[in-house]
Amino acid sequence: MESPLPEPEPLTSLIEALRRLPGVGVRSARRMAYHLLQYDISGADQLSRALASAVQGLRHCTRCNGFAEEEVCATCANPKRDPSLLCIVETPADQNMIESSHGYRGLYYVLMGRLTPLEGVGPQALQFDRLIQRVSDGVVQEVILATNFTAEGETTAHYLSELLRARGLTVSRLARGVPAGSELEYVDAGTIAWALMERRHT
Amino acid sequence: MESPLPEPEPLTSLIEALRRLPGVGVRSARRMAYHLLQYDISGADQLSRALASAVQGLRHCTRCNGFAEEEVCATCANPKRDPSLLCIVETPADQNMIESSHGYRGLYYVLMGRLTPLEGVGPQALQFDRLIQRVSDGVVQEVILATNFTAEGETTAHYLSELLRARGLTVSRLARGVPAGSELEYVDAGTIAWALMERRHT
Repeated sequence: MESPLPEPEPLTSLIEALRRLPGVGVRSARRMAYHLLQYDISGADQLSRALASAVQGLRHCTRCNGFAEEEVCATCANPKRDPSLLCIVETPADQNMIESSHGYRGLYYVLMGRLTPLEGVGPQALQFDRLIQRVSDGVVQEVILATNFTAEGETTAHYLSELLRARGLTVSRLARGVPAGSELEYVDAGTIAWALMERRHT
Repeated sequence: MESPLPEPEPLTSLIEALRRLPGVGVRSARRMAYHLLQYDISGADQLSRALASAVQGLRHCTRCNGFAEEEVCATCANPKRDPSLLCIVETPADQNMIESSHGYRGLYYVLMGRLTPLEGVGPQALQFDRLIQRVSDGVVQEVILATNFTAEGETTAHYLSELLRARGLTVSRLARGVPAGSELEYVDAGTIAWALMERRHT
């Protein structure tokens, strides 16, 4: 920041910190800082605490790789779920969408990303070895690839399909009921339920 | 949030807290939360601390109403500034822009907002009584109105002009060199310097 004004240090630090949020530039960060400090001190306080407790209290579920407070998350620990089915999604938001379709009773694995070789995110960054370990428990029979229907999501699905079929697993992909080019998070639950039902084996 | 998934509590709280930021909806908040927790734990930590220390360490300068660590901010305490000139701005960002024009050596008063009657922000919410007290110190001779050249900014300037002239002060407005309809924060410093020079008395 090229601020010629002797801005108080805590304000400068706050603006710098807000810029770490994705999609937030210096002007947005400034507006956010002013807004919080002027009109919503309790919001600033709440956000500070929520961040601290999330940093402290959240870890990755050792089974599905999603965010969890315990070693194993509630979904993975649920005995009513079918452990022979494993649905692979990019993010917890995608998992939420699939849950909201009420069309799936199996378990999940959250990649926490997608293959984007141009940005240096390869199989190693996404810890595919951990995924391989997860699907090799002898219980998982079928893996449903539910990555986004974007270029990167399709690439990830294709790569995983090769990888997992080579290990003798049945691999399927959500049916093309999901409009091509869109992201799961923005699709209505009915379409997702239909796509689950019509999933095709690859 | 209509999350059917048993989402870990710290994550839900973080998403809720991020939504307090201006212009951030539930989807953006989710993405921000995932991003911080997955790729930038140190950023989350930094933001948490910055918020806490800003909440703790910042207050309003008793003279200019801007953010300050001390009772009186560095600008107001600077003996080299001309105390007979008082420039009224909407936000600290606007003050920064005027400083960067190097065209002004007087003092400031930061409104921390503008008159927006439709949103219930009137003279009382902006503490105009405090401003009146500030300009009545017997030292201020001229007040320069540097609110934005938007509808609300013009309304605020008009209102303040009436209010302050009734108290025998010389009141001026930044010259119309600033393109109408735009906000100070986005104008180049040269234009602002010119507008300061050409300020017209109202």
